[in-house]
Amino acid sequence: MVAARSRQDTLTKPPGSLGRLEKLSIQLAGIQGKPIPQIRHKAVITMAGDHGVVAEGVGNWPQEVTAQMVYNFLRGGAGINVIARQAGARIIVVDMGVATELEPDSRLLSRKVALGTQNMCLGPAMTNEQVVEAVETGIEVVTAEVAKGLDIVGTGDMGIGNTTASSAICAVMTGKSVAEVTGRGTGITDEQLAHKVEVITRALEVNHPDSAQPLDVLAKVGGFEIGGLVGVMLAAAAHRIPVVIDGFISGAAALIATALSPGLKDFLIAAHVSAETGHKILLRHLGLKPLLNLGMRLGEGTGAALGIFLAEVAARVLAEMSTFTEAGVSERG
Amino acid sequence: MVAARSRQDTLTKPPGSLGRLEKLSIQLAGIQGKPIPQIRHKAVITMAGDHGVVAEGVGNWPQEVTAQMVYNFLRGGAGINVIARQAGARIIVVDMGVATELEPDSRLLSRKVALGTQNMCLGPAMTNEQVVEAVETGIEVVTAEVAKGLDIVGTGDMGIGNTTASSAICAVMTGKSVAEVTGRGTGITDEQLAHKVEVITRALEVNHPDSAQPLDVLAKVGGFEIGGLVGVMLAAAAHRIPVVIDGFISGAAALIATALSPGLKDFLIAAHVSAETGHKILLRHLGLKPLLNLGMRLGEGTGAALGIFLAEVAARVLAEMSTFTEAGVSERG
Repeated sequence: MVAARSRQDTLTKPPGSLGRLEKLSIQLAGIQGKPIPQIRHKAVITMAGDHGVVAEGVGNWPQEVTAQMVYNFLRGGAGINVIARQAGARIIVVDMGVATELEPDSRLLSRKVALGTQNMCLGPAMTNEQVVEAVETGIEVVTAEVAKGLDIVGTGDMGIGNTTASSAICAVMTGKSVAEVTGRGTGITDEQLAHKVEVITRALEVNHPDSAQPLDVLAKVGGFEIGGLVGVMLAAAAHRIPVVIDGFISGAAALIATALSPGLKDFLIAAHVSAETGHKILLRHLGLKPLLNLGMRLGEGTGAALGIFLAEVAARVLAEMSTFTEAGVSERG
Repeated sequence: MVAARSRQDTLTKPPGSLGRLEKLSIQLAGIQGKPIPQIRHKAVITMAGDHGVVAEGVGNWPQEVTAQMVYNFLRGGAGINVIARQAGARIIVVDMGVATELEPDSRLLSRKVALGTQNMCLGPAMTNEQVVEAVETGIEVVTAEVAKGLDIVGTGDMGIGNTTASSAICAVMTGKSVAEVTGRGTGITDEQLAHKVEVITRALEVNHPDSAQPLDVLAKVGGFEIGGLVGVMLAAAAHRIPVVIDGFISGAAALIATALSPGLKDFLIAAHVSAETGHKILLRHLGLKPLLNLGMRLGEGTGAALGIFLAEVAARVLAEMSTFTEAGVSERG
């Protein structure tokens, strides 16, 4: 990182004039352990899972949309497909626990832990075995991608009901009230929001998750795709691969992952702050400053794909800009 | 724009969930006059000019850097080269009035109005004939690029001393005090900043520019590259081409251009808010909300190139995402 900082100051621009891009290039250097980091092989891992808590009527989209959107990802018609294409990132779609059996597809990683989680208002969403399987699956997915070449990874999610689970995680891990960290997800009314807060409050009363036991929190009020993303983050950091986290659901996974391994924080890049209420609180708790603020709240990894683009720009600036000496440009007087 | 808005709401995502990207796609549709705008041919026009006011010691870089950076642009080693490559945008480098004769180069458009402007502390920076020539040059450059294919254009600048000229324009056109709109440019000390404010104040006292006469303001306290960018904006809008404006210098040009033609504002996209003090004030005056806030202050079109990338993402989301019907995805209940 010292070498990267020094090189930034030799490039043909006023020192510091590329702002966050310079800092990002230095972070990438530290993560990859290279004075000039390289971002060539890029991937977004989009994990899908269903949530038993939808039985409480927390959202306004039917559960079948999770499976339908997985098919949409595979056909290339979703938001993440368009943005990842533009950023030059491949997409890895993983069925972590969609509530229906999906048709076999060579482009889909079928790693279904179960047909959706249990309703967290009635007890834990997952068993301890399931949560370990979810996290280990995330680790395995990253390990397989590393073998193909991976310089940066973005996290993405799909799961009807998963802002409810993420708000529950966020409340427990940040110590904020449920109301403060619960938002409108895909767009609900005031009345529906009040009901969502009540449902999450009930789930926390039923389960008593303990923030000192991150995997316990994940099991009780999390989800399969959130657990998978925890594994993605842990494995990527272990391989010195920068992780660009997407919005609120990826952020909830980051709360669990950094609680398990505090040093992980240095490997995370917050792509954006989403329109979802709790996301700002979550990022502040993580100590991460988002790169973008575009009012996005789609998930899937759409914000992460934009963040990957900016990370590649940052790395290429450091690698490709001429120095004052190379370009024969006079330095500041 | 109505058609674009309607189509956004049929795409497989919660309506509005791509935030600013959706709004941007709708603006692009309006500018191009197409329900589904297309961004394929992309260019950044980087205009260079020198400023007589550097004789007052307003900055800390020697004037020769303007010419040296033009050569750097032509060799591909500057920040704008790296970022434009990544965004897939071509760069058009224009000598609008560098203070030295540059070596002929097929990649350089030599449109030198004069060997730098006059010192605005002693009288007008440009004659009326020169300011008209500068604006017309910008118009001609765009017209030639349109013939080659141009779907979006970014503005960029290079000129030692040009934050001083831009602050002067900004003070006149926004009615704010010189101190409020004068910043540290490439990075000056408190003492140098106080001197810069004093120099600009003196230039305004000597010239009495009148905000009701935008070309008069441009002539008295502007610069050749700023005048050229005014022409770029006017011509691009006339051809229904969206203009992504860069930082403070491009913003100063936008103040002049929108004063000449208020409807132009709808054709402008503010790429970012720069670290330069007056930029926020300037954007507020223009009524433009920046897409990015990355603490950048390099100029050259570097912010504009990032904005072009986001505009292309916005257009491609609208064009390439599947609708609910196409993807067989259920809509909100």
